[in-house]
Amino acid sequence: MNDKVEELWCVRMTCDDQTGVVAEFTSALARDGWNILDAQQHTDQSSGRFFMRLEVHHASTGERALEETLLPAARRVNAEVEWFAQSRKPRVAILASKTTHCVVDLLERWRTGELPCEVVCIVANHEHIGVHASWYDVPFHHVPFHPSNSEAFAAIEGMLSQHRVDLTVLARFMQIMPAELVAQHEDRMLNIHHSFLPSFAGAKPYQQAHQKGVKLVGATCHYVTAELDQGPILEQEVVRVSHRDGPEELRRKGRVCEREALARGVKLHLEGRVFVHGQKTVVFP
Amino acid sequence: MNDKVEELWCVRMTCDDQTGVVAEFTSALARDGWNILDAQQHTDQSSGRFFMRLEVHHASTGERALEETLLPAARRVNAEVEWFAQSRKPRVAILASKTTHCVVDLLERWRTGELPCEVVCIVANHEHIGVHASWYDVPFHHVPFHPSNSEAFAAIEGMLSQHRVDLTVLARFMQIMPAELVAQHEDRMLNIHHSFLPSFAGAKPYQQAHQKGVKLVGATCHYVTAELDQGPILEQEVVRVSHRDGPEELRRKGRVCEREALARGVKLHLEGRVFVHGQKTVVFP
Amino acid sequence: MNDKVEELWCVRMTCDDQTGVVAEFTSALARDGWNILDAQQHTDQSSGRFFMRLEVHHASTGERALEETLLPAARRVNAEVEWFAQSRKPRVAILASKTTHCVVDLLERWRTGELPCEVVCIVANHEHIGVHASWYDVPFHHVPFHPSNSEAFAAIEGMLSQHRVDLTVLARFMQIMPAELVAQHEDRMLNIHHSFLPSFAGAKPYQQAHQKGVKLVGATCHYVTAELDQGPILEQEVVRVSHRDGPEELRRKGRVCEREALARGVKLHLEGRVFVHGQKTVVFP
Amino acid sequence: MNDKVEELWCVRMTCDDQTGVVAEFTSALARDGWNILDAQQHTDQSSGRFFMRLEVHHASTGERALEETLLPAARRVNAEVEWFAQSRKPRVAILASKTTHCVVDLLERWRTGELPCEVVCIVANHEHIGVHASWYDVPFHHVPFHPSNSEAFAAIEGMLSQHRVDLTVLARFMQIMPAELVAQHEDRMLNIHHSFLPSFAGAKPYQQAHQKGVKLVGATCHYVTAELDQGPILEQEVVRVSHRDGPEELRRKGRVCEREALARGVKLHLEGRVFVHGQKTVVFP
Repeated sequence: MNDKVEELWCVRMTCDDQTGVVAEFTSALARDGWNILDAQQHTDQSSGRFFMRLEVHHASTGERALEETLLPAARRVNAEVEWFAQSRKPRVAILASKTTHCVVDLLERWRTGELPCEVVCIVANHEHIGVHASWYDVPFHHVPFHPSNSEAFAAIEGMLSQHRVDLTVLARFMQIMPAELVAQHEDRMLNIHHSFLPSFAGAKPYQQAHQKGVKLVGATCHYVTAELDQGPILEQEVVRVSHRDGPEELRRKGRVCEREALARGVKLHLEGRVFVHGQKTVVFP
Repeated sequence: MNDKVEELWCVRMTCDDQTGVVAEFTSALARDGWNILDAQQHTDQSSGRFFMRLEVHHASTGERALEETLLPAARRVNAEVEWFAQSRKPRVAILASKTTHCVVDLLERWRTGELPCEVVCIVANHEHIGVHASWYDVPFHHVPFHPSNSEAFAAIEGMLSQHRVDLTVLARFMQIMPAELVAQHEDRMLNIHHSFLPSFAGAKPYQQAHQKGVKLVGATCHYVTAELDQGPILEQEVVRVSHRDGPEELRRKGRVCEREALARGVKLHLEGRVFVHGQKTVVFP
Repeated sequence: MNDKVEELWCVRMTCDDQTGVVAEFTSALARDGWNILDAQQHTDQSSGRFFMRLEVHHASTGERALEETLLPAARRVNAEVEWFAQSRKPRVAILASKTTHCVVDLLERWRTGELPCEVVCIVANHEHIGVHASWYDVPFHHVPFHPSNSEAFAAIEGMLSQHRVDLTVLARFMQIMPAELVAQHEDRMLNIHHSFLPSFAGAKPYQQAHQKGVKLVGATCHYVTAELDQGPILEQEVVRVSHRDGPEELRRKGRVCEREALARGVKLHLEGRVFVHGQKTVVFP
Repeated sequence: MNDKVEELWCVRMTCDDQTGVVAEFTSALARDGWNILDAQQHTDQSSGRFFMRLEVHHASTGERALEETLLPAARRVNAEVEWFAQSRKPRVAILASKTTHCVVDLLERWRTGELPCEVVCIVANHEHIGVHASWYDVPFHHVPFHPSNSEAFAAIEGMLSQHRVDLTVLARFMQIMPAELVAQHEDRMLNIHHSFLPSFAGAKPYQQAHQKGVKLVGATCHYVTAELDQGPILEQEVVRVSHRDGPEELRRKGRVCEREALARGVKLHLEGRVFVHGQKTVVFP
């Protein structure tokens, strides 16, 4: 229990839409002396599902009191509710392969305080990523994928478990995750795909984009699901290209989109701003 | 009083920040059977001012009931509150000079239902705008600025008053508004300036931009205040340019920004999404 | 023959890449007294094809002289060459269905001199577009698609031929063009598709985009080929959207991309800046 | 002299506009067996100055031959001409203060081959930048600005000279350069300013932007001149912000623009794509 005074709390809630939901929570909070600093809500019209994110603060009490305020309110409207202190640091693992631009960007943003998390390990199937891990003083694990994929994934599973990882970030990790591992990390595993999905899913998207002759290339940050490159989209970014740009130039220009969409996606997730709702996401800015 | 059932209502509220404000309003609404469809709020940290916009709906009652719900709540937290039916149509006047791109864009968006308003008149100091007014079946008033500016502004003032105008849109109207007229229409008069303010305020911004050699040009939609091009900014847009673009090309590329920033600004204002707060705005998307 | 002095000429040339091509043309032009005001070139590395666009001017002569300069040079390097006076006005037909935003935007840009062409007719399968045609004083033809598509397309074919159309612009024309008609207008028929292709080809792209939950929607201007929505892409545009945007909001936000991508595409084509090269385009800005 | 066969060469040329300039150079190149792979040119209408950048290649010869081809042509049209092998590595110094995002981005892009240069030293008035220098194995010099600015600048001048620096990059270096040092490095010293210039020149631009309430913030890469933040602009970038963003959030969002505009500017300069022309730049993409 975190009963630190001066803590800010993030409250996330979802339930079926009904009259009085907002009042139920905000009244309970007000009655018990909690100040609401920020509130965002959304009702999905097609499913009738309601989502709310609050930032609250109390002058003299902490988590135990918050729980006592929220749980009865949640019961009354049959809501799922969760909360966390804004000072908490979720434990993040980064998985990488060869390219370093996303890894370095995440590490640098983390180091400068932009990403509210603890990077607890970097796992890669290429050894040279170890240098960057050592720069930022993060434990590094090299997991070779030859001769055996299944052994490699067993090792990764072990490490995510051993490091008690809250969020796994595939920072241009070029191996297809096995379904069981994905299932274990449902809504807690983010990938960056190097195209503006749903265009150019699968292998070599910049090659595909070059062949098609598109005038913008992009990148997509999405939750990992069993189906490759089909998980709920969290963030996307694009950049203008031209006939002058060969596949190598597309790759270079796209890198900027990749690291940007991934970093923004990771930050949104860490701050509790994303609700996965079926195949889609609700993202409170 | 609009007591139409099935009406959606927009509620706008502002007060000093304090614990329990959101609860005060949402509880009163819930108690009286109002469903909250959308809620956005913001606290300005430096001034301690709180802003909230709600969209609410009641299955069986209307404005009189809403007023009875809101006013006591507002009194308790010393808030300013206002509300309007989303089906209302504010009365809009468009003021123009020579160029037509903003006028045509506003009229076309209005005709296709994108702008929730009534365009009640177009006033211009060039006669040829009358053609567009007739196309869209809007009363047109030609007000020549020669020989006398003061007579022209008196005529404009008369027309805005006679047409009971709620919002005046300066759609590239190239005359400087007198202070008294501005004061009468405080927070209800929008201008589009053809630069990314605060850069290039005043005359000939594209010429200024060309001389400076900027790599992006833009446009700014702002409320009109007594000081030229200095009012609270509502919306801005930019577009990339290059050394190939002379002043005429900047003007052409900028036109797209102008009409876009102006149309978005007008729509945001009409939907009650903008709060003017000192020299700045709070804009709920 | 246009032998007007003070005319500017656009020269377009393509051939297999080889040493001396640029020199061949620029020397011939210099020798004969032509000044080069602008030059852009591109070599497609995979095909070895070379493309060049020049803007040239002569103080005292015109088209006949230009031809005499260019043809021998073209013969020597086995190039295809064409040229046109920048004052020429290609004859453009606009095909439309129900929505008017692209039609109005094209007409307004044309009226204000932004599009160097003559709009010679508007053809639509909905009668109400006729109003806009009359505003801009353009002949209008209503072609009903019931009961018979083939009769309708025969009528359209007749009209494009009768009006001696150089470029046909499908401004949200919602009928699939028959292959023969497409073949007759190869590289001279532009379409705007209301998605960021190759995502969401075919029917109801905004509905598809909403279901997928993408965070950006877009529009694509492409040449029409026999395969639906698969022709060479000329221009694309995107805009940011969020979970708040239902299909209707995506449609509204997307409209701005559509008219922008289409108008830019039409302008690029009219100014001779586009070379179709297989499934792709070379676009000189 | 670099007489390596298979080298690509970049040729930069500027002269007063006149008939036959392009032919003069391209003919000489063709006659001597040089193939032109890329060509871009621009005539500044107001000054009548002509600029051209070529990429050329010869199957069997090198720099001495290129010089013999270019110099006579340049003499005939009174042009300034320069050339460099695309494999050359200009010597770059990075100057920094406290913030690391631009430094890390430049170093990482350099390490991955995106920036064609040699980073020969990093100079900073804060010691902690030394860590990053050591990561990327670049000599680091700590130059304290207390008690004496003039000694510090004397030290910097010495280092730039000792390292024979071709380009100096101020990567958020927060000290005002003395005029003599600027003069020594005319057109060879790049700065990133953390605003969309000419808005918010000088100190604390994010604070200024927050006070003004702009809806976009940006960054500007420009050549350093004697007048603070007024040098020729090379590249700019902006990002959308809202009333939710306090000065700290503007700073965070703006950082992405800063590193992007700076990296693009440095790359454009290194590739010889920029001509400074009075207060402005010509940039060939």
